[in-house]
Amino acid sequence: MKNQMVSKEKMKKLIDVAAGRIPADLVIKNCRTINVFSGKISEGDIAFAGGLIAGIGDYEGIEEVDAEGRYAAPGFIDSHIHIESSYVSPEEIGRLLVPHGTTTIMADPHEIVNVCGISGLEYMIKAAENTALDVKYELPSCVPATPFEHSGAIIDAGIIEKLVGNDNIAGLGEFMDFPGVINGTDEALAKIAAAKAVGKFVDGHIPGVTGKALSAYAAAGIAADHECSTVEEMNERLERGMYILLRQGSACHDLRTLLQGVTGENSRRCLLCSDDRQPRTIIHEGHIDNHLRICVEEGLDPVTAIRMATLNAAECFDMKDRGAVAPGYRGDVVLLDELKDFNVNRVFIEGKLAAEEGRYLPAVSKCDINAVKGSVTLKDFSKDKFKMNLSSNRVNVIKILPGGVVTAKEIEEIQLDEEGEFIRNPQVDIVKTAVVERHKETGNVACGFLKGYGIKDGAIALSIAHDSHNIIVVGVDDSEMEFAVKTLADQGGGIVLTREGEVIENMPLPIAGLMSDRSGEWVEQKLTDIHFKAKEQLGISGDVEPVMTLCFMSLAVIPEIKLTDMGLFDVTQMSFIPVEAE
Amino acid sequence: MKNQMVSKEKMKKLIDVAAGRIPADLVIKNCRTINVFSGKISEGDIAFAGGLIAGIGDYEGIEEVDAEGRYAAPGFIDSHIHIESSYVSPEEIGRLLVPHGTTTIMADPHEIVNVCGISGLEYMIKAAENTALDVKYELPSCVPATPFEHSGAIIDAGIIEKLVGNDNIAGLGEFMDFPGVINGTDEALAKIAAAKAVGKFVDGHIPGVTGKALSAYAAAGIAADHECSTVEEMNERLERGMYILLRQGSACHDLRTLLQGVTGENSRRCLLCSDDRQPRTIIHEGHIDNHLRICVEEGLDPVTAIRMATLNAAECFDMKDRGAVAPGYRGDVVLLDELKDFNVNRVFIEGKLAAEEGRYLPAVSKCDINAVKGSVTLKDFSKDKFKMNLSSNRVNVIKILPGGVVTAKEIEEIQLDEEGEFIRNPQVDIVKTAVVERHKETGNVACGFLKGYGIKDGAIALSIAHDSHNIIVVGVDDSEMEFAVKTLADQGGGIVLTREGEVIENMPLPIAGLMSDRSGEWVEQKLTDIHFKAKEQLGISGDVEPVMTLCFMSLAVIPEIKLTDMGLFDVTQMSFIPVEAE
Repeated sequence: MKNQMVSKEKMKKLIDVAAGRIPADLVIKNCRTINVFSGKISEGDIAFAGGLIAGIGDYEGIEEVDAEGRYAAPGFIDSHIHIESSYVSPEEIGRLLVPHGTTTIMADPHEIVNVCGISGLEYMIKAAENTALDVKYELPSCVPATPFEHSGAIIDAGIIEKLVGNDNIAGLGEFMDFPGVINGTDEALAKIAAAKAVGKFVDGHIPGVTGKALSAYAAAGIAADHECSTVEEMNERLERGMYILLRQGSACHDLRTLLQGVTGENSRRCLLCSDDRQPRTIIHEGHIDNHLRICVEEGLDPVTAIRMATLNAAECFDMKDRGAVAPGYRGDVVLLDELKDFNVNRVFIEGKLAAEEGRYLPAVSKCDINAVKGSVTLKDFSKDKFKMNLSSNRVNVIKILPGGVVTAKEIEEIQLDEEGEFIRNPQVDIVKTAVVERHKETGNVACGFLKGYGIKDGAIALSIAHDSHNIIVVGVDDSEMEFAVKTLADQGGGIVLTREGEVIENMPLPIAGLMSDRSGEWVEQKLTDIHFKAKEQLGISGDVEPVMTLCFMSLAVIPEIKLTDMGLFDVTQMSFIPVEAE
Repeated sequence: MKNQMVSKEKMKKLIDVAAGRIPADLVIKNCRTINVFSGKISEGDIAFAGGLIAGIGDYEGIEEVDAEGRYAAPGFIDSHIHIESSYVSPEEIGRLLVPHGTTTIMADPHEIVNVCGISGLEYMIKAAENTALDVKYELPSCVPATPFEHSGAIIDAGIIEKLVGNDNIAGLGEFMDFPGVINGTDEALAKIAAAKAVGKFVDGHIPGVTGKALSAYAAAGIAADHECSTVEEMNERLERGMYILLRQGSACHDLRTLLQGVTGENSRRCLLCSDDRQPRTIIHEGHIDNHLRICVEEGLDPVTAIRMATLNAAECFDMKDRGAVAPGYRGDVVLLDELKDFNVNRVFIEGKLAAEEGRYLPAVSKCDINAVKGSVTLKDFSKDKFKMNLSSNRVNVIKILPGGVVTAKEIEEIQLDEEGEFIRNPQVDIVKTAVVERHKETGNVACGFLKGYGIKDGAIALSIAHDSHNIIVVGVDDSEMEFAVKTLADQGGGIVLTREGEVIENMPLPIAGLMSDRSGEWVEQKLTDIHFKAKEQLGISGDVEPVMTLCFMSLAVIPEIKLTDMGLFDVTQMSFIPVEAE
């Protein structure tokens, strides 16, 4: 990326300020600046000019603010995040994250591109112009994520070749098709070669793979992995030259475990990321400031931790203009009360105050969402599509395993009517579930059975179903399910809870059926209400996360059994199986 | 630089080898591989495919060599070197350096470009194709180095804009015009902006500057400095985001001093370089292997030292394809007997054995030098040009201070004839010296007086005179000086020693008057003979380095008084002064 490009005129002013010949635009007086290069802390002022840092020392500014001896750190970088997982727009994620000290995120718009294709990416880029947060976008590398479901778009090697060189594309997003890389398929290698040809990085995703297969993946020159969950996995990847993104999201909590493997020798190859972080987590626990708190709790030196959130990330992703408080660097500075709780006092972005004591300061204007609205399109849909016409009452069911997104395949005997249709027994916790294709008017609907969800009344439907984001619905009968799906389509996607033909709660997500155009606080409240009513009014089990459980029910790479719009899928065999058991 | 670009076909083979599906081109069995990422040493084989490293572990190869348990390190990188200072061609520098484990050099062809302009650079690039050593070239940023002498070429911002984006240009060479940067001159900033606009680095050179002036230089985004001679200077630059190149050349020995400032916290920002290294030093002391030996002698951990010679340099200069022994990296590997003396056993470059037990293995063919030959052109030259027509016998003399290149300005009374011409007194160690312009047929000749050189007979002339490389001549009378200059011109430059109209020793340097087309060993022997005869036959003082002293006599940035083709120059006043003292 040509992100060091500074015009001659801007450079001239910067140099004049640095040399003390003219006053700075802004000076933060009285800082203790953390120097990520030397590990030392120096007392003095920070001078900004034209959005960049001119110098640290004794400076005068047209505007001056007093840091009162607080620590000044470089702005924090989240090295891998899907904005869509926060259910809010890029403008709103900026408003949520900046007060926590985050000034740059490396975002992979994988979800919206699965729904809207490149116009989804274009919307995300445009929306991000409305926030002080610097949102760098990766081009999603694997859309669809698997060939086992219908997505809204296909991003093949040809499209990647055409787009990856664009200035607003930082690199290629997490390369989830690791079997493709390890086996050297033409399509996978063409995508990687296209990125390399224009000097862009390729981000990785390789859970569980070890040994020579891992070497094969690393040999393709893939820069990073955020899927380590053990120190052994981390070391194996790091030794092969991959940067390690230590993840702390809403669902995945790898950070504390992986910190046990961070040493003075290897820490420069370690970064911090959240991957998926819901508004609730951001509001109550924070963002990268939360990661730093955990790092120090686990015994890491605070400056080493800050490097993981700044310099190391900048190095990994070729962002030479940031990651340090030093002359010529972007004016992204976080003032911290101390280096233990990492309480963020003020945040400066490009030399301007952007947040103070938890409040985001710039006015929030949002870009038009028409291009990504109305993403839920049904074809010939009615409850007739839920008919299964089963030839056996011994069926494969998806058994929910509480506390995660892994499922178990079980065989159960159910009751059928004379047409081979399911008759639900309220005494048995088995219900029908369906995936309704919503992108391409295929009319595809696939049905299966869910065990352990606990639902006793009504239905729940959502348009968030990784990674293709078709509609997933669960209900006590076909009519309830039909009503839920139709209501969801009418509101343009999101989440709907219905009972006896009434909507009892709903969260419209007009942006691609994935994101709200409202605030993070609104989303948080809605999700709280949905969780409450899912349990209280639909009777969904207390030990099941009612939304997240369904969001990952279609993801045909997570064991053991999933349902997509194309049918019931056995992940361990990597093949579709009939609902009827053998 | 797009130096990660690997074709799909090459990637496919690499992955197949890494995964163990097909045998490697070459396997080094039984290594102890130094992992620069983790700091650990792992036992196993190194597999190469298509010139790259496929994997480390248990591999089979079409060809196999046994490392017998030796350490395997990444190929060493010299982060800043002027090939011209070794007086040999790029082909020959490769032959000299590779057996010492050096596989990449970052070369600034500043000297030849001062003489030949861009055709000098083109020759250097072409010549480097004939060596296994990977020579990366920087585009010289400051030609001429000062406006106080005539060089063979001017590389202005316009030329830099045109060339810096070329694929065979790594970045912009050491920005010696630090006053230009600090003062923000249009020309200096235009050059830097041109490099930044195409994503290239700008190397630095900023001796002695501190405080806000240093911040101004760093604010321009200059990547590195190799001119630190104290730990304080090093820390000040490092904290401003500049990489520090710890220098150990033939003349400048900063390494041991600076190592006292290298810590676990800052070492990732430290690199190794030689800057100027003569064949004698290379042959007798080595190259980066010598730096590593010194690092360990000074108490540095060997893996940290190796990182300075590998990963850190690769990071500083955006060479993502090298600096580690890991899958996907260039097949540049050095086998070391141990990690103390750093005795180099074998060197592999791009997966091929390139040196063994001190011998360079590839056949050496050299490229045509016609484009850079015949660089010494005189205009209307005769000894009449040495006439000074002085109006006073009180003159400013250049006093040589032994052991360095700094001089002192002194006033002496000399004897003059009736025409105001110098009459040498053999009892007094003051002789005439002259600089003869050799590039542009200006006919310029400037004369001055040298004290403390000791010459008692004949003359010495050379075409190496930093940075414009005009002819510098010293002799006991005008006729001897004339003969020396004419002989030098006839041989196309180099060094000549004459006495009583006879050449007593000479070293032709046909390549731009700076480099020999012969071997490093030949150059070493010639320089030894020249030094010997300079003392024995011309009587030059034993405490003066007869060649180097003159090489820097024209460099109008080193205090206190210098002589260029334009006249006598007082560096402390930054102005020309008359030979006659006030």
